[in-house]
Amino acid sequence: MAHSPDPILVVGSVALDDIETPTAAHHDVVGGSANYFGSAASLFAPVQLVAVVGEDFPEAHLDLMAARGVDLAGLERVPGRTFRWRGRYGADFGDAETLETQLNVFEHFQPKIPASFRETPWVFLGNIHPDLQHGVLEQIARPRLVAADTMNFWINQERRALRRVLAHIDLLIINATEARLLSEEDNVYDAVDAIRAMGPEMVVVKKGANGAMLFHPEGTFAAPAVPLRRVIDPTCAGDTFAAGFMGHVARAGARDFATLKRAVINGIVMASFAVESFGQDHVLALDPRRIDERTQGLLDMISLA
Amino acid sequence: MAHSPDPILVVGSVALDDIETPTAAHHDVVGGSANYFGSAASLFAPVQLVAVVGEDFPEAHLDLMAARGVDLAGLERVPGRTFRWRGRYGADFGDAETLETQLNVFEHFQPKIPASFRETPWVFLGNIHPDLQHGVLEQIARPRLVAADTMNFWINQERRALRRVLAHIDLLIINATEARLLSEEDNVYDAVDAIRAMGPEMVVVKKGANGAMLFHPEGTFAAPAVPLRRVIDPTCAGDTFAAGFMGHVARAGARDFATLKRAVINGIVMASFAVESFGQDHVLALDPRRIDERTQGLLDMISLA
Repeated sequence: MAHSPDPILVVGSVALDDIETPTAAHHDVVGGSANYFGSAASLFAPVQLVAVVGEDFPEAHLDLMAARGVDLAGLERVPGRTFRWRGRYGADFGDAETLETQLNVFEHFQPKIPASFRETPWVFLGNIHPDLQHGVLEQIARPRLVAADTMNFWINQERRALRRVLAHIDLLIINATEARLLSEEDNVYDAVDAIRAMGPEMVVVKKGANGAMLFHPEGTFAAPAVPLRRVIDPTCAGDTFAAGFMGHVARAGARDFATLKRAVINGIVMASFAVESFGQDHVLALDPRRIDERTQGLLDMISLA
Repeated sequence: MAHSPDPILVVGSVALDDIETPTAAHHDVVGGSANYFGSAASLFAPVQLVAVVGEDFPEAHLDLMAARGVDLAGLERVPGRTFRWRGRYGADFGDAETLETQLNVFEHFQPKIPASFRETPWVFLGNIHPDLQHGVLEQIARPRLVAADTMNFWINQERRALRRVLAHIDLLIINATEARLLSEEDNVYDAVDAIRAMGPEMVVVKKGANGAMLFHPEGTFAAPAVPLRRVIDPTCAGDTFAAGFMGHVARAGARDFATLKRAVINGIVMASFAVESFGQDHVLALDPRRIDERTQGLLDMISLA
């Protein structure tokens, strides 16, 4: 019998979102990077979640996460309202336009890593203020792999704090627009070189409907996206990609180049489910056989045989 | 020793182009779909070219093509000026903006296929008026594979004539924007389905810096582009892709799914050389070892091993 995988530690936001797309609007969707990551990654390995919610956050969702194998020992519930984000997607489902951000309980959040989480080998720093990401790194033992996400807001407003984080992580997972913004390079390959010079040995560039690329010291790997007829809501695609990626790493218990290529495939497959419904609906209801089927379809699509 | 490959018949334009990019402007660049295709495809198989030029077309270029193994028995030289196109590329090197088209000798051109070309097994209908493309099909025996290109101008202005061509070809090679325009479908996979319903059993969708996809009755194949740091001029990328594709088919002497996947790879590699210089400069000067190197690099980039 296979060993149970080592857990993944995720630190990020848990939120209540209002999302507008060209076809619909949804209110109070349970969201946030740590939530999206945690519920998806739990399909592959135990997850340890560190985040904060307010008094208005639905207890039922926490029960659901716990039932999925997400350890909530690091989730604080404090007085006040949960972090809220309101955003809109255009017809091309490109980058979201942020209409409103209410920090609420996130304003004074300082991640506190429970003692039982401090030796966890696989760490994902979700998209939160880079100072909070850095605060996590100061509380943990050296993990086997630390990956981080960020976004245009932190790149523009907190570049110095972000650079301090980049110096201490192994892998940055970022989209092509963010890579250009962070590096101030137009060409994505120049952008990746510049980012790797800032610290991370490895970079994953997400390209939406055009797949993703992994830049690794041993080479570059490129994979296409899963062909989709209809995109409903790309909100959690990035975090679900990261969950598929880190989930595969934890499941494999390895971080060599070949394992990370498969991790990209798993990230792409998971992201494809994420965008097919509002919020996480499809991901939460996912039958593992559907993941296997879609993975095989993607592998067939890149096979030369 | 390997057999000499069967030839490829190409019908299209031979032109003198003025090209503006954000960094430079070049005048009287030898261009045109049949020229670009023929000189690149001749690296892989003998080429039979059918086109027309005027009195102003440089004899030296024809000598160069003949020396590369392009059979010019179907090239007419007639009184008047050669077809001229003037276009501009923006900073993103997306679709060219056509500033001026002078049909000149092309206005009354009717392709006449020499008797010695009529049994050729591999046929490429370059980007010309669909009635001319159709006229070619009426003069030839049933080939093993007929591929065609087109562009937004014909899709918009000559849709009916184009539909008549589509009903008689095996493979349409088209970019994603053109696929959407032709099918009137926003989603590229819906677009491909609609195009295949118009006739071609197979469709290749070119996605520029995001590679290309082959849609085949046995499945779908997707490959990324060759990573490039600098794009100089994308003018002949499409025709050079087609040349690499058809060149591989002719060289392999086969048209099964696995062969066509490798043909996509060869098309992507050849297109990568095309965009690195004005007009065809890099392609004309290409050492076959550089093609092999870049092919290996692309294969490594999609390998899971």
